[in-house]
Amino acid sequence: MTALSGVKVICIGQFYFAPYCSMLLARLGADVIKIEAPEGDPYRRLPTTVDNTSVQFTMLNAGKRAMRLDLKSERGQEVARQLASQADVLIQNLSPGAMERFGLGYEELSSLNPRLIMASGTGFGSFGPYAGEPAMDLTIQARSAVMSTTGFMDGAPVRTGPSVVDFMAGAHIFGGVMAALYQREHTGRGQHVEVALQDAILPSLTSNIAGLISSHGTVPERTGNRHGGLAVVPYNSYRTRDGWATVLCPTQGHWQRLCEVMDDPDAKLERFSTMAGRCAHSDEVDVIVERWTSGLTKNEVTQALAGTGIPNAPVVTLPELMEDPHVATRGILRQMQDTAGPWLTLGSPVFLSDSPMVEPSRAPALGADTDDILRGDLHMSDEQIQELHASGVV
Amino acid sequence: MTALSGVKVICIGQFYFAPYCSMLLARLGADVIKIEAPEGDPYRRLPTTVDNTSVQFTMLNAGKRAMRLDLKSERGQEVARQLASQADVLIQNLSPGAMERFGLGYEELSSLNPRLIMASGTGFGSFGPYAGEPAMDLTIQARSAVMSTTGFMDGAPVRTGPSVVDFMAGAHIFGGVMAALYQREHTGRGQHVEVALQDAILPSLTSNIAGLISSHGTVPERTGNRHGGLAVVPYNSYRTRDGWATVLCPTQGHWQRLCEVMDDPDAKLERFSTMAGRCAHSDEVDVIVERWTSGLTKNEVTQALAGTGIPNAPVVTLPELMEDPHVATRGILRQMQDTAGPWLTLGSPVFLSDSPMVEPSRAPALGADTDDILRGDLHMSDEQIQELHASGVV
Repeated sequence: MTALSGVKVICIGQFYFAPYCSMLLARLGADVIKIEAPEGDPYRRLPTTVDNTSVQFTMLNAGKRAMRLDLKSERGQEVARQLASQADVLIQNLSPGAMERFGLGYEELSSLNPRLIMASGTGFGSFGPYAGEPAMDLTIQARSAVMSTTGFMDGAPVRTGPSVVDFMAGAHIFGGVMAALYQREHTGRGQHVEVALQDAILPSLTSNIAGLISSHGTVPERTGNRHGGLAVVPYNSYRTRDGWATVLCPTQGHWQRLCEVMDDPDAKLERFSTMAGRCAHSDEVDVIVERWTSGLTKNEVTQALAGTGIPNAPVVTLPELMEDPHVATRGILRQMQDTAGPWLTLGSPVFLSDSPMVEPSRAPALGADTDDILRGDLHMSDEQIQELHASGVV
Repeated sequence: MTALSGVKVICIGQFYFAPYCSMLLARLGADVIKIEAPEGDPYRRLPTTVDNTSVQFTMLNAGKRAMRLDLKSERGQEVARQLASQADVLIQNLSPGAMERFGLGYEELSSLNPRLIMASGTGFGSFGPYAGEPAMDLTIQARSAVMSTTGFMDGAPVRTGPSVVDFMAGAHIFGGVMAALYQREHTGRGQHVEVALQDAILPSLTSNIAGLISSHGTVPERTGNRHGGLAVVPYNSYRTRDGWATVLCPTQGHWQRLCEVMDDPDAKLERFSTMAGRCAHSDEVDVIVERWTSGLTKNEVTQALAGTGIPNAPVVTLPELMEDPHVATRGILRQMQDTAGPWLTLGSPVFLSDSPMVEPSRAPALGADTDDILRGDLHMSDEQIQELHASGVV
């Protein structure tokens, strides 16, 4: 048994936000039906393909059933309402207002199925001055001070490489759906769950906000790889013979141990002997640490610090990450194999001892399960199904 | 009623990871008891204070009850076991192995309370080559290619400004706890939930991984504020009179509308007329767009593009974010007021229509609720409580 055995989820999701949530639900055993417009989830058409299939699409949509459905047609909307009538969860991240225009708003669906949990992902939520505005990972990073807090002090703001906004919101709405499923056990009623991209990323700025308000704005907005409050030195990434390594000494003990390992007489100078002294001379301290790391490879830095308790890590490149034995063992980046060959998908970061992760099969082609769903889930006749095909609804 | 009315949570958490999870649970109505070592959560002692209280600590721990308990003492461990015996959830992110050393491992607690859900947050999880290794936001960002994918093409890797790793993991473990609570409704049993920092951040690298493997490693690892695959132009942040603005044109229609708005004859040159052409001349396109933005303020850029459907946003600074009317309305950064004055905490990004957010009171002082918990929750006599105080256990 899995945590979500018997839970039926309709995902009218696209890009990353809703599909990541429904992926997490699928890995926990939910039956996920992904509904796509006739032209398919835009992420099917990304140019980043392997074997003619978008890598992103496969990573997020393996383990779901795929239905093609034209929600702009009345008959398509009717089919969607039929599916919602028998579902536990409907999650969507269409443009704000689209579901209402399709007659698929929460009020309408809830009146058909009071046990339905509807989850809506948007950029800015359903209220507030920016409600309804379109949003993408980059524009939310700009609007939420993620960019202005990322980058070097004397350089331009930078977006984060990973799509942290979309996935942060996806993880939150997953938790929200689970909370609503839990509450339904007690009330018998479904409800509407909402998560906005901007809301979901703001808590991660807690340290930055604390630095801003406690310093009355005197702490620089971005500090590169140095400590956000410039209150811990050393704390940086340092050049090595083959890349970079991060090293930080949050306590006096860490610094003393680092001095022993580096064995550089300059490190033992009086002006570096306290944290306050090191903070006042951070450029000099960084030069000393880099003098040591630059003679080593990044993995040699890690080896030299093993057992000292000094927090450190090599700055791993993406190709190195893909080959990392720990990552392979964890199975989050899940290397799969089937008769057609090897393929890559996402496992789940959520490990439950009583709910073994459901191994996904490859992401289905657009509409691959349409007929099965119409027949098996909605009990339609062959005639009805043919009619839907003929009219272009499915 | 709230989603988590009647759910009792013990949080043996520190820093951000577990405390963020228990904060989300508290906002949904759970009764959260935060257990701290005699010296307190290290984040109480951060130098970033307002009114002598750490801003970070208040943001994450408002709305919880606080108990001081020495888990290194046998008597303290006994008290913790008593609390776990009557709790629904115990969440912890102590150093790997610490709970087992304290006689508070999952096996032990589960035998006392089979309905208990234990949630453990670690850096690298309970299996795999790096299992048990310490981890911090910076070192995980280094180890997980977050840094190597963030920054400019010709520059050094950069960490993200916000603590995305800690909060991403906190959101995932919140979902995991909720899934376990839901499953318990059907099985009557608790279980062990595990989330590792590294696992939780890896899915957000999906686009980067897709770019790497589909291009056989030819796409640059980091692309500044340009599109990760360099396949959309324009897509960048551009200088304005008072900062930066992001503008992107994912489709031909967006570009045509931008050309109309910019009204620059150079933009209409033949070599920029297709996406392939713009990608081949991205530096030139960026010069043209920046020529336009540099005559405007960042908010004027947004005003000029209003109604065009072209995705864009000003690069908002942290002080501007704190004053943003939308952020204020949403209440995620929650400006509170009590008799002692104004204070700041986190609201919840998870909106449930049937579970109004529980408004928190200020984060309690270390051990503020210890006696109440010993008396009210564990039914200890005044004598027993005095004894625990006298021996330094609480």
